[in-house]
Amino acid sequence: MLIDDLHTVLPDDRIVRDPDVLRSYAHDEAEWAPYGEPAVLVRPRTADEVQAIVRQCLKHGTPVVPRGAGTGLSGGANALGGCVVLATDRMTAVKEIDPVERLAVVEPGVVNDDLRAACAEHGLWYPPDPASSPWSTIGGNVATNAGGVCCVKYGVTRDYVLGLQIVTGTGELVRLGRRTAKGVAGYDLAGLMVGSEGTLGVITEITVRLRAKRAPEATVAGYFDSTVAAGEAAAAIRAAGIVPSALELVDRHCLAAVDAWKNMGLSADANVVLLGRSDVPGGQEAAVMVECFEKAGATWAAQSTDEAEADALFAARRLAYPALERLGPVLTEDVCVPTHLVPEMLARIDLAAQRHNTQIANIAHIGDGNLHPLLITPSGDDDAQRRAQAAFDDIVADALELGGTVTGEHGVGLLKRPGLEKELGPAVLDLHRAVKNALDPHGILNPGKVVGGPVQR
Amino acid sequence: MLIDDLHTVLPDDRIVRDPDVLRSYAHDEAEWAPYGEPAVLVRPRTADEVQAIVRQCLKHGTPVVPRGAGTGLSGGANALGGCVVLATDRMTAVKEIDPVERLAVVEPGVVNDDLRAACAEHGLWYPPDPASSPWSTIGGNVATNAGGVCCVKYGVTRDYVLGLQIVTGTGELVRLGRRTAKGVAGYDLAGLMVGSEGTLGVITEITVRLRAKRAPEATVAGYFDSTVAAGEAAAAIRAAGIVPSALELVDRHCLAAVDAWKNMGLSADANVVLLGRSDVPGGQEAAVMVECFEKAGATWAAQSTDEAEADALFAARRLAYPALERLGPVLTEDVCVPTHLVPEMLARIDLAAQRHNTQIANIAHIGDGNLHPLLITPSGDDDAQRRAQAAFDDIVADALELGGTVTGEHGVGLLKRPGLEKELGPAVLDLHRAVKNALDPHGILNPGKVVGGPVQR
Repeated sequence: MLIDDLHTVLPDDRIVRDPDVLRSYAHDEAEWAPYGEPAVLVRPRTADEVQAIVRQCLKHGTPVVPRGAGTGLSGGANALGGCVVLATDRMTAVKEIDPVERLAVVEPGVVNDDLRAACAEHGLWYPPDPASSPWSTIGGNVATNAGGVCCVKYGVTRDYVLGLQIVTGTGELVRLGRRTAKGVAGYDLAGLMVGSEGTLGVITEITVRLRAKRAPEATVAGYFDSTVAAGEAAAAIRAAGIVPSALELVDRHCLAAVDAWKNMGLSADANVVLLGRSDVPGGQEAAVMVECFEKAGATWAAQSTDEAEADALFAARRLAYPALERLGPVLTEDVCVPTHLVPEMLARIDLAAQRHNTQIANIAHIGDGNLHPLLITPSGDDDAQRRAQAAFDDIVADALELGGTVTGEHGVGLLKRPGLEKELGPAVLDLHRAVKNALDPHGILNPGKVVGGPVQR
Repeated sequence: MLIDDLHTVLPDDRIVRDPDVLRSYAHDEAEWAPYGEPAVLVRPRTADEVQAIVRQCLKHGTPVVPRGAGTGLSGGANALGGCVVLATDRMTAVKEIDPVERLAVVEPGVVNDDLRAACAEHGLWYPPDPASSPWSTIGGNVATNAGGVCCVKYGVTRDYVLGLQIVTGTGELVRLGRRTAKGVAGYDLAGLMVGSEGTLGVITEITVRLRAKRAPEATVAGYFDSTVAAGEAAAAIRAAGIVPSALELVDRHCLAAVDAWKNMGLSADANVVLLGRSDVPGGQEAAVMVECFEKAGATWAAQSTDEAEADALFAARRLAYPALERLGPVLTEDVCVPTHLVPEMLARIDLAAQRHNTQIANIAHIGDGNLHPLLITPSGDDDAQRRAQAAFDDIVADALELGGTVTGEHGVGLLKRPGLEKELGPAVLDLHRAVKNALDPHGILNPGKVVGGPVQR
């Protein structure tokens, strides 16, 4: 028995069979994505324990589904029936912060905000800032190549991963990548692991590059009558040679939901809100952004360096998600299109919502073209669910038609497998399967996610 | 016959058999690296022609060695006896520059400086700036993940590649990656191709991200009595939170060679020269860098924003390589170590030079820890060659002992295969071979480079 064998290689407290706990570890936060009942949950404390678990899974031919905090939005961490769920949430050591080389070495279960706080003590900064940063782990961030608000200027998790320690699909514990600033020794297998959602290896340690702490951000906000005008404002900012440290859009459906909850009167004043940030010292850049907003026809625009005031400006975005969740379970979509096509994509999303009688609100990282349509479906309404699925499929098709991708930062998991097949086509899928088979020859690493195995719907 | 078959799929002018031309295309600029005599050189003009060539090579089981301008320094483009050399040097179209999305689409044979010039016309900037930029091609830059002087602030080629079109090891013409700012749809196979030296696919088109044109750079220079003092200056710059747009070191052996040629009196004034650049507007950062130089004990330090004066300051670096070449063939080494260990590494290189009675001068990207020991060996002196090889091996071993890598930016090719095996170890090499076999199942893509096949010495 696998579980007996796990007991021979792990201390008992690493092995969890309580059905209530198992259930809570059986899926991530993706609405709609299917999941099965795991045979067991393991919560290792060391890389050697992870290796021992993977070796037992190999011996028994049992799939292992690695997970961090389970804040994913695509079903990438969802359990398969009878699998081993391997949670890294007890591997929480920040092993090293090196202010001279500007790098940190952490275990995969370190929470994003905890790493950021530890870096701040050394005057350093770890930029990737997914909305889940108070809960999500660096291991999960790496496995999904998490993005966030500051990506538009500072890039995604991939851009910060220097090296990884992983357990391979054949049960070896190895180091990939490096600690040096540069290096081209062999294939970029560390980079290949980033975003591979636990299908090519189980991450046991991560070396990330850091930046020097930056200047405090100034915040700007603008109200617009239309998404087209907001798109023109974003284009004007780019044309001015400015790369803001955040540039977010909140659409009228979000504003209405926030008003319905908090009665802030946002939806009376604006059809769409743009929120920007600048971390270039001196405030000039923020002033130019306000000018760009005004030239593009903003009905109101302002800037603030005061934290409370900035927080109030960002309230429309911060409150959008909880405001929508009051209306029903929210599926967060994640298409990414060329930045100048964001208004067109938003128009198509509105059409999909009308066509399929589905409620869809939008927040968008307009600075990098990454939209998050938020599909609200009342619980237990099968017909609404079917209509929402049709709208979801239309959104994915529209994004591809506009030269975009089915997932900007949330990953493929289960939800985007059909979209991925459309986006990549058979020849590139074959390359994916070849890589998957090469690195996971026994097919035990999170099977059925990203590629491999039948697409579940 | 392969050549007859090539004639059936290509216009005649793509196929070259002139022995003199073949010889000039048979190797890159790596001293010491072995090469064989190719059966034929092909110079395709389109992606379809590249595909047709690879398919003929598959049919005949003939290795294909892709190359750009052949400016590589590790033997990655060196021919195997009887192979097809596929030069992309006629695929020179800049297909698209999109100032809104800040990206360019180019054929692989576009010369780095030509792309930079084309971008500049749109107020845009393609940062990667290998020393070979007047001659080397973007395809070659991508295949080797080329670096350069500005990496310390702006990263390497890998950081700018959004998407690729390639011909696979099974002869499919496919697109990898994307055009959007973000995307996590499937494994990062575009990233995997970068730096894979033509062993996993033949690049036929490249989509790169661009930056807005930056402010003119200020240049600073400092003279130091020792590499330790220069290292302290570099550390002080980092501690000040500054990321210079260049930070270069030139050692006393280079200065002496420049003096022997140009009689500039550099070696009388300095034991080691540091050269830095700042592209932050206002000049304050450059002033802080000069302060850091002075605090670390610079015997002389100055800054300039005047181009001619800046060029004079950089003369020590610019002239070092040609000055050394006057003394004999120069092998450019490429180890990379943690930045604070650059002085230690330079001391070890001096010891290796003494131990093996070999002349070694150093230029170094001290800002990112990437050193270029330049080993000078008189032509035709077999004993000197053996001693230089022993020094080379010691340098590689020392870099690994200091936690570094055998290649910071030049790639593995042939020269670094023994070092790569030491750096990666058997389990990680197995992963490399598994990936190589998965993507090049018939072993025709540049066999024997990076991994696969016996190590040649």
